[in-house]
Amino acid sequence: MTRLFNDPAAFADEALEGFAAAHRRWVRPVTGGVVRAGGTPEGQVAVVIGGGSGHYPAFSGLVGRGLAHGAAVGNVFASPSAQQIRSVARAAHGGAGVLLMYGNYAGDVLHFGQAAERLTGEGVRARTFAVTDDISSAGPEETAKRRGIAGDLPVFKAAAAAAEQGLPLDEVLAVAEHANARTRSFGIAFSGCTLPGADHPLFTVPEARMAVGLGIHGEPGIGEESLPTADEAARLLVTSLLKEVPDGVGGPAGARAAVILNGLGSVKYEELFVVYRKVAELLGDAGVEIVDPEVGELVTSFDMAGISLTLTWLDDGLSALWRAPADTPAFRKGAPAAPEHAAAAAVTAEESDEQTVPEASDASRRAAAVVLAALDALAATVDDHAEELGRIDAVAGDGDHGIGMQRGSTAARLAAADAHARGAGAGTVLVRAADAWSDRAGGTSGALWGSMLRALGGALGDDEKPTAARVADGVTEASAAVRRLGGAEVGDKTMVDVLVPFADTLAAATADGVPLAAAWDRAADAAETAASATADLLPRKGRARPHAEKSLGTPDAGAHSLALITRAVRGVLIDHH
Amino acid sequence: MTRLFNDPAAFADEALEGFAAAHRRWVRPVTGGVVRAGGTPEGQVAVVIGGGSGHYPAFSGLVGRGLAHGAAVGNVFASPSAQQIRSVARAAHGGAGVLLMYGNYAGDVLHFGQAAERLTGEGVRARTFAVTDDISSAGPEETAKRRGIAGDLPVFKAAAAAAEQGLPLDEVLAVAEHANARTRSFGIAFSGCTLPGADHPLFTVPEARMAVGLGIHGEPGIGEESLPTADEAARLLVTSLLKEVPDGVGGPAGARAAVILNGLGSVKYEELFVVYRKVAELLGDAGVEIVDPEVGELVTSFDMAGISLTLTWLDDGLSALWRAPADTPAFRKGAPAAPEHAAAAAVTAEESDEQTVPEASDASRRAAAVVLAALDALAATVDDHAEELGRIDAVAGDGDHGIGMQRGSTAARLAAADAHARGAGAGTVLVRAADAWSDRAGGTSGALWGSMLRALGGALGDDEKPTAARVADGVTEASAAVRRLGGAEVGDKTMVDVLVPFADTLAAATADGVPLAAAWDRAADAAETAASATADLLPRKGRARPHAEKSLGTPDAGAHSLALITRAVRGVLIDHH
Repeated sequence: MTRLFNDPAAFADEALEGFAAAHRRWVRPVTGGVVRAGGTPEGQVAVVIGGGSGHYPAFSGLVGRGLAHGAAVGNVFASPSAQQIRSVARAAHGGAGVLLMYGNYAGDVLHFGQAAERLTGEGVRARTFAVTDDISSAGPEETAKRRGIAGDLPVFKAAAAAAEQGLPLDEVLAVAEHANARTRSFGIAFSGCTLPGADHPLFTVPEARMAVGLGIHGEPGIGEESLPTADEAARLLVTSLLKEVPDGVGGPAGARAAVILNGLGSVKYEELFVVYRKVAELLGDAGVEIVDPEVGELVTSFDMAGISLTLTWLDDGLSALWRAPADTPAFRKGAPAAPEHAAAAAVTAEESDEQTVPEASDASRRAAAVVLAALDALAATVDDHAEELGRIDAVAGDGDHGIGMQRGSTAARLAAADAHARGAGAGTVLVRAADAWSDRAGGTSGALWGSMLRALGGALGDDEKPTAARVADGVTEASAAVRRLGGAEVGDKTMVDVLVPFADTLAAATADGVPLAAAWDRAADAAETAASATADLLPRKGRARPHAEKSLGTPDAGAHSLALITRAVRGVLIDHH
Repeated sequence: MTRLFNDPAAFADEALEGFAAAHRRWVRPVTGGVVRAGGTPEGQVAVVIGGGSGHYPAFSGLVGRGLAHGAAVGNVFASPSAQQIRSVARAAHGGAGVLLMYGNYAGDVLHFGQAAERLTGEGVRARTFAVTDDISSAGPEETAKRRGIAGDLPVFKAAAAAAEQGLPLDEVLAVAEHANARTRSFGIAFSGCTLPGADHPLFTVPEARMAVGLGIHGEPGIGEESLPTADEAARLLVTSLLKEVPDGVGGPAGARAAVILNGLGSVKYEELFVVYRKVAELLGDAGVEIVDPEVGELVTSFDMAGISLTLTWLDDGLSALWRAPADTPAFRKGAPAAPEHAAAAAVTAEESDEQTVPEASDASRRAAAVVLAALDALAATVDDHAEELGRIDAVAGDGDHGIGMQRGSTAARLAAADAHARGAGAGTVLVRAADAWSDRAGGTSGALWGSMLRALGGALGDDEKPTAARVADGVTEASAAVRRLGGAEVGDKTMVDVLVPFADTLAAATADGVPLAAAWDRAADAAETAASATADLLPRKGRARPHAEKSLGTPDAGAHSLALITRAVRGVLIDHH
């Protein structure tokens, strides 16, 4: 929802004011909108675009060299008035006439049409053009009734680039018509948007559903389906557009297309990239050559959750216009210098030599089997508790402890099994597991668990039989490594609170001659007790902790997972006793 | 919430893949992340940045000339592993060493530190630097504990621009330290984000509240307040940062600062611009010169609703580094050519000559008073029903009919009063009201009401007494104008369904010699009946209408408002009878 505004009635004006203040290098404000800061070159046709507010970067963000010469900006989701358009057009006029461009909506058609009439009456040559790219808004037999959505951008750009080349008004208009005839878009939406000052959304989409073809102001779509995966969404968009390849293109195979995957507002970049990955693959499969794709927010609808895909089927002329440089607040393209191209294909950094393992004694290899079993038990326990660990972590942290531990322990188990199969000793099995854990898990826990297993592996080595004392030494070193790396001490309510008593108990018991399984059993009990004690979270000094009341009674996630793991490993040691 | 994904575990990898596919001009993928497509120039220090996924454009979107040489990208909200960082750093290395840069989080500190150790061990000179700009995360006496948020960008950029100038590794690191020491950020948040595959948000902020200083992964903030206006939000951000101007700057007055107003995800551009408008004003009041401001999404947190303000206090050196050109997928700066600067200040298109009014007869001036009273009644009725009109319009349209009618009728009344005070006749009063309505209201209804009042004004003129017949003629012309402009006919369930029977009844009654007030009374009854009939909405042919069932029983908003207005004007005519 829209949350930041002052007087809702002043929202559009204040937004335009702030926009212009932030982008003085590109634009200057005039009554009704903005024009290029440097003006329109004498004798160049001026392309003046426009529409309602709420669609940024459409329309003011698209003013600058290589794109629009001016933008008339209306109130939220409302056409600018004929007077606003006329004012912007007069300020943008470079003496060679004005092409007024906008998406095909009733209000815009009326006001831009009236503005063109008045301009003509005042001696300024003016023509109008409405973009009609949204294939879901009317059938192929009545394309003139279609709405304009993200296809605005390539059509505006083609016309503006033609104007920049010095073409006269009628030819610039002809380019707009040609580009529009070859541009198609299709969109899906997951939620509506809430306008400034409104207390409920302008429109809604039911939970876990997707509206197919919904307009950017909530105009009716053509259907409703279950929420798709990213790949399914990509397939729906591509398939819909490939069903309607324009006349003159001759089918997708071998054709070139400008591709725009547009976010409507709160579908974010990473999601767009996941969808684009499949879009590119599917278009490639269909034989379409993708030219200068754009993935991002280009025609939005406040914080509406939705995406649209636009294809402009290029011929040589349109390709040159699409690739021509542009420099506006929100859309920039092509540096004057040639694009960077790598001489080499994607380089993969050399991997560590995982194919061979160091020599190991038989005793150490037998111990490696126990280590592997322990890692299996560890990973299984993490799997069983992943959700719980995430929930606990979400109380004070970012909730990813369960997922991170799962990724790390799974990778560690696989790497350990691989090393064991190659005849590695206990030390190498642990070091390989450590590297895999830290590499795949990322995050703090990944680094700490990697360092623990590495310390333990170093203490065990590949030569001698891992005695109880050696294991206890390794755990003591692991405990020291965690404190060194993480900077935490006992009492900070982290896994250190568990690791230190665990290591100390294990060391004391083995020093007393207690066998490993029994010593570990004792140490695991100490760990469990210590983990519960981390639940007594108190506010840290110097910082307000709004979540503190929720934290009371919840143990630290890292401490809790460590205790769970020591218990799981205990079972393995008793079995192999 | 994050809705578009396949396997949540594969989300970050697939996003990186799609990102790289869409941005081949700038980057190429390597194990662990991306590097510049053209590689690092031989002998240049490589700046390798990184962090978790979910913060786009941080970190992969900031790779390119003038900014980072490579980015290591971890899982969602998780540090990349030391192996990933090492791999990216090796691919980015240009022979002059590597500076590893990241926000100050425990996981990143661990993994980047480990990577630097390994690189050094392999003969690649490597240094690390953690950005610490978030003033809400720790007090001024322990700045080293602060988190890195949007201040990442100016600190990365300063270091990278220094590297581009050919400075050696230690000097690039010194630049990073200097930039970081002069960079401060402060953020507020209104809602959390939901990670791929999660069924509830990672964290929440209570409805209509604002978390002050909340971290970008939901780390605790320093307080909670009521939702502010945009101006209040701007004031909080600016005041907080001005309280902690770094040593060496000597106070805000006369200082220069790079300013970044960053959106976290679902606070959208128009809102950011409204806030920026006040930020710029307040900084100006404090005597701060703003250098190359950035307003947009630069370090995000999926669809989290929140904003942050960053100031980097510039000296000559930092100013040059901040303004140096950059060309990356998500951040571009400075064309090689000089920026466009308008010779003139903001130009206001000439306004129509509103100071004088045409000559008018006494009869027409007296009639103008009635017209003004009618417009007053009209505007009052629209005010009274604005919310109802919006609600009705939201059923099938975008819900702004009430607001648009309010804006238009208020402007019309003011313009009419002004013209009347200057001695205008009835015709001119209506034409001025028409222009003001259409200019201020925008949208379809603005254009149509403008054309109606203009037609009526034309029929009445400024000379003769407006007879009942002349008014009826004017209404008939208004009806024709609306049909011509809007392209709708009777039966399309629009205001035309009301306007035509109204005009016909008025014309028939006045032709029969019925006085104006009585004829209007009859016509208003016909209008009311016709408006109710527009409630029988049926699906339009050729289009599925998911909202159709809700539309049944709801009249068309434009038809309804027209009927309300004819009734309101009836009262005026009876009074002035």
